[in-house]
Amino acid sequence: MAGEQIDDGARIRLDLAYDGAGFSGWARQPDTRTVQGELEAALATLFRRVPPAPALVVAGRTDAGVHAAGQVAHLDLTSEQWAHLRRLGVSRGGDPEDPASVLARKLNGLAGRARDVRVHRASIAPDGFDARFSAVWRRYEYRIADALATKDPLQRSRTVWTTDPLDVDAMAAAAASLVGLADWAAYCRPRPDATTIRELQSFTWHRDEQGVLVARLQADAFCHSMVRALVGACAAVGSRRLDAGDPLALREAGSRTSAFAVMPADGLVLVEVGYPEDAQLAARAQRTRERRSLDPAS
Amino acid sequence: MAGEQIDDGARIRLDLAYDGAGFSGWARQPDTRTVQGELEAALATLFRRVPPAPALVVAGRTDAGVHAAGQVAHLDLTSEQWAHLRRLGVSRGGDPEDPASVLARKLNGLAGRARDVRVHRASIAPDGFDARFSAVWRRYEYRIADALATKDPLQRSRTVWTTDPLDVDAMAAAAASLVGLADWAAYCRPRPDATTIRELQSFTWHRDEQGVLVARLQADAFCHSMVRALVGACAAVGSRRLDAGDPLALREAGSRTSAFAVMPADGLVLVEVGYPEDAQLAARAQRTRERRSLDPAS
Repeated sequence: MAGEQIDDGARIRLDLAYDGAGFSGWARQPDTRTVQGELEAALATLFRRVPPAPALVVAGRTDAGVHAAGQVAHLDLTSEQWAHLRRLGVSRGGDPEDPASVLARKLNGLAGRARDVRVHRASIAPDGFDARFSAVWRRYEYRIADALATKDPLQRSRTVWTTDPLDVDAMAAAAASLVGLADWAAYCRPRPDATTIRELQSFTWHRDEQGVLVARLQADAFCHSMVRALVGACAAVGSRRLDAGDPLALREAGSRTSAFAVMPADGLVLVEVGYPEDAQLAARAQRTRERRSLDPAS
Repeated sequence: MAGEQIDDGARIRLDLAYDGAGFSGWARQPDTRTVQGELEAALATLFRRVPPAPALVVAGRTDAGVHAAGQVAHLDLTSEQWAHLRRLGVSRGGDPEDPASVLARKLNGLAGRARDVRVHRASIAPDGFDARFSAVWRRYEYRIADALATKDPLQRSRTVWTTDPLDVDAMAAAAASLVGLADWAAYCRPRPDATTIRELQSFTWHRDEQGVLVARLQADAFCHSMVRALVGACAAVGSRRLDAGDPLALREAGSRTSAFAVMPADGLVLVEVGYPEDAQLAARAQRTRERRSLDPAS
């Protein structure tokens, strides 16, 4: 498969996970530890004799402290880099190791020693795949242990603890009222000239077996701080500081408000990124790029 | 209920959990952070005006780095200390708070700020209850993510990662062969004059939904390092360094061996401690004490 891609180089899809606590977010920044920075440093080391050092394109740029269980990124390798991976796979002895597996293993060896970032899988991407522009949805989860939940020290790094008891039914009603295509300006940290129109495809709340409140949210894309603002609005409903109808009314009012708090990063996990079938990947990426170019943001 | 106990003081049962990573085990030691040390320091602070500072008796003395989800301990309070808790509950205003709840809340406020130890519940213990001597079984869980499992950074603090693929069926067969009343000298770090006879009541292995190998072990009690040695013997079977029959043969040989490794502490969680019905508590504690006094250990 994908033989031509390899003669010309190959686009590689990475499926990865991280504990956000030790990172200043996904995006590379000087003098601070970020997920992209650690992985790109590992790529630069791995390919130092076969430049250029590959750069990563990611599906969901997570903020400082936000976790990921199902993040997706891509990188492009030259045919010389692919051949380098193939040689590394052969030099292990025994059956030759698939070059994409060599890449995942080397990245984990170089960037994963602290075990807080892990490449689950590297694979040759199908034609037209773009980790960012081909994605059709992103799914996040947020966890709150309130007064009624068991507060588990072993899960504290991904769970916010509160002392209030929260009304999960009221929170679920507020969440359901928000589903749809809308302008989320009231829930987004503003970025100059960027659209705040998004389709919130689902938003639910339930208690897990330990009583922890779990929010699940899916949208075509989320604007900056949107998930944590939506969770904050529902938490205000759960503690009766807002009525169940207020989060929708605040969205319709259209401007940012102090009626609820943006929740802390550590309760948030990027769970999964959705892509269309392979035949649709290129068309989807093209459509996304066109929409962004109509948008004064880009 | 238990009115007489309170006039005379009360025995309190604590149900608690901790992440072992930040502790040098359960047992109090000078100049090092331990779970008992942190909780007893909190008790000393809480009762500084109504001495004596209570001491804790625990069901399972965990080693450095071992976690607990369902640890049980007890402490004895004088009637003055109980009255102190009652006053603290009233001074909050509104409905008076149950004194046992006040105790849990204060311990969490004083010892739980790092969120790595959490008192789930404090309650007046039934007559005859002794956290250590009334216990009829202890249950532990051990987690290994091998080459076939998803290695989740968010679960790394309670999961050991290995690069070998492990054969879970062979491990389950080895585990099942070990169930029963036996002398576990081959699996125990020796303590002078202590018996190594224990009843291993169940020992199973399965893969969870992420492919992580999970061992569940239950015994009347475990001797020192026994769980981690049993897990190590099964892991050696899983990676084909031992045959499935070897762990039993090694137990019957009766002496410690280098055929397997004692596994790291961080994969281990004390999950639950079992007690008999209330009417049996005192008799059980008496029997346990008698058995220990027949045993040259005590």
